[in-house]
Amino acid sequence: MIAREKLIDTARSVYRSYGYSPIDTPALEYSEILLGKGGEESNKQLYRFTRGKRDIALRFDLTVPLARFAAQHAQQIGIPFKRYHIASVWRGERPQKGRYREFMQCDFDTVGTDSNTADIETLFVIHDLMVQIGFSEFTIRVNNRAILNGLLEKLELTEKSADVLRVLDKLPKIGREAVAEEMVEKVGTSTAQAASVLDMASLSGTNDEVLDQLDSVLAESEQGRKGVASLRELFDCVSAAGIPAERVRLDVAIARGLDYYTGTIFETFLTALPGIGSVCSGGRYDNLVGTFSKESLPGVGASLGLDRLLAAMDELGMLKSESTPADVLITQLAAGKTAEYLRLGRLLRAAGIATEVYPELRKIARQFKYADQKGFPLVIVAGEDEFSTGNWQVKNLLSGEQVAVPEAELADHIHTILTTGDDKTDR
Amino acid sequence: MIAREKLIDTARSVYRSYGYSPIDTPALEYSEILLGKGGEESNKQLYRFTRGKRDIALRFDLTVPLARFAAQHAQQIGIPFKRYHIASVWRGERPQKGRYREFMQCDFDTVGTDSNTADIETLFVIHDLMVQIGFSEFTIRVNNRAILNGLLEKLELTEKSADVLRVLDKLPKIGREAVAEEMVEKVGTSTAQAASVLDMASLSGTNDEVLDQLDSVLAESEQGRKGVASLRELFDCVSAAGIPAERVRLDVAIARGLDYYTGTIFETFLTALPGIGSVCSGGRYDNLVGTFSKESLPGVGASLGLDRLLAAMDELGMLKSESTPADVLITQLAAGKTAEYLRLGRLLRAAGIATEVYPELRKIARQFKYADQKGFPLVIVAGEDEFSTGNWQVKNLLSGEQVAVPEAELADHIHTILTTGDDKTDR
Repeated sequence: MIAREKLIDTARSVYRSYGYSPIDTPALEYSEILLGKGGEESNKQLYRFTRGKRDIALRFDLTVPLARFAAQHAQQIGIPFKRYHIASVWRGERPQKGRYREFMQCDFDTVGTDSNTADIETLFVIHDLMVQIGFSEFTIRVNNRAILNGLLEKLELTEKSADVLRVLDKLPKIGREAVAEEMVEKVGTSTAQAASVLDMASLSGTNDEVLDQLDSVLAESEQGRKGVASLRELFDCVSAAGIPAERVRLDVAIARGLDYYTGTIFETFLTALPGIGSVCSGGRYDNLVGTFSKESLPGVGASLGLDRLLAAMDELGMLKSESTPADVLITQLAAGKTAEYLRLGRLLRAAGIATEVYPELRKIARQFKYADQKGFPLVIVAGEDEFSTGNWQVKNLLSGEQVAVPEAELADHIHTILTTGDDKTDR
Repeated sequence: MIAREKLIDTARSVYRSYGYSPIDTPALEYSEILLGKGGEESNKQLYRFTRGKRDIALRFDLTVPLARFAAQHAQQIGIPFKRYHIASVWRGERPQKGRYREFMQCDFDTVGTDSNTADIETLFVIHDLMVQIGFSEFTIRVNNRAILNGLLEKLELTEKSADVLRVLDKLPKIGREAVAEEMVEKVGTSTAQAASVLDMASLSGTNDEVLDQLDSVLAESEQGRKGVASLRELFDCVSAAGIPAERVRLDVAIARGLDYYTGTIFETFLTALPGIGSVCSGGRYDNLVGTFSKESLPGVGASLGLDRLLAAMDELGMLKSESTPADVLITQLAAGKTAEYLRLGRLLRAAGIATEVYPELRKIARQFKYADQKGFPLVIVAGEDEFSTGNWQVKNLLSGEQVAVPEAELADHIHTILTTGDDKTDR
């Protein structure tokens, strides 16, 4: 939970730095708001019940409540509306590793503009999030649904697009041959059509090289050309912003959430743990709010996979195994001195050092055991001797070193140990 | 929501500075865990339903889940267990001003120790919370249930204690005479017994003076004397810690949550708005965890009234009416320069300045209107002229001042305006 809070703090600070504002909506919505928005599976997973005359349910994502909120409040909030929302959602499915019935989503979205600037900023936010969390080796894979749709239009497969893309999504898992077979046999494309789709999805080279190839493949499709132009602007901005080119890759094979997205699509993979899947995904959707309002409010955004990311960070040894947010434990050794121990705690806190006072007068071994168990780096000890000399004993549990420090120098001494790990003073 | 997040951040930072760790528990608990823990009214207000074979409900507070959690995990987590929990709870009651069906609680507790040190630290946390939030004029009213129980024991009213205290709680509202009448007529005390209770509840003077008077009133009651001794230690520690004496007052009249608390009790009132009621309340309870485990785990803690406090801060003009967390809006004026505007945004963010880029190339008046609506203090403008000279126009929306600033000096210039409000440079 300490690591989770830190991750959430990082996400909030990145979101805010781009001007996204926090919103919160009730966990319970009228069932009619939620039903049918996420498909049959999602309807089944709803925690739905009645109370009095009200038919209500717990939200299954943060996007449908955003759509409801934006439709209701578009007039007051001002457009474009940039919000982040970090909160729990509920899905009544069988829990398994990394899948829970209650879990947290961490979304950010820009609603009310179809400008490509918002798509590009969404990518920037994902990039900065990953860097601020502590990753330097990752790839944000980008595509644009207009490119896929442009090709399908050219191949006269528009009506079968959902099925084609669903099969295409399996490419990394089952390989080219199996995908081609499934397209022909299950979706009913011709062998040539399947080959064209797979050829485009397999284009390789630098981002610019792939864009050039796409330009010629999609020369006849207006929406295809528009998709290529959007991506070209995106990669120009990535380069102007000084973001390392290897972190943002065009990947024509990703299709992501078949019916939902309409433009740019993002997925983010950790170089050290590609198998864990995308840790931050999103894209542009044209008709999010349309179901709740006459106005059509286009939007673009993404969602950080908190639980998946925490699992990855744990596996990569990026999480400290602390179970206290405090750095110092003040033990109680001398009877009748509680006021002194508590006063000292406040003195350290005033100097910005998080400090816990052990609440009981117990054997010192037991208090040290507690410090160990909780992971405190520093313990302060003072018995009758220390009260008579006015020096406090500071024990570094990592180095084993123990130093007597006068109260006036205590905060500085502790700051030095905490920042440098060095507890040798020249006194 | 921006003000609410700031308040929550402050609470978390104070809790952490004392070594409280964050926990989270599921919003849904098995109904049997929640039923009967909060009384008949609370049972009725439960959002309870079945899903498959499971009878589940949304939590109505954070204390019952804490008790369940502590009972289940006491072995692993280590005792004393200090946790904070900031999360939503649900109560199916009629919504009214300041009362919602879903609202947030902001609790901190120390479980597993009956040491008075933990009670005193709870008081310190409440004090520091109020100061960090921005209040200097407030009073934490303190009492100890042992004092009230000691007196009732002496008066042979122990069996009627719940009723006596319930009536006593009305003292500030209905006055001494009406309370005395109700005690005699409804609770069945003698006139002399009622007078004794009211005499004690009305003791006045400095904290020390009241404690001295209590010592003589309760000389024959062991639990009464213990209560007085605990409070005496608490006030000694308050004074040793340098906390202004007027902020912590002994108030023998507060009884708070009749059956729940067993020792120290806290309520916190704002000097400027006493009528809004206590904004942070809590106390010691002996048998919180006993219902879920054979072990008895005593605890002490308090809860910050987030919504009430926000209402108070709003009334006292302590909330800024901003609706963006960013300080700077970069407008788009020149076509084909999106990469430049976005690059500049990243440059300012890297200097710690939260910056939003307006996503569309629109009339400048519209972009300024958006800046006004959202409350951005600063707007950056650059058209063809600015791109040719390399100077960015910085407009201060508060002062109306507009200054041309070279890019290399931009971050410093903005930092100066944001910290001093002064946008006159000596260039």
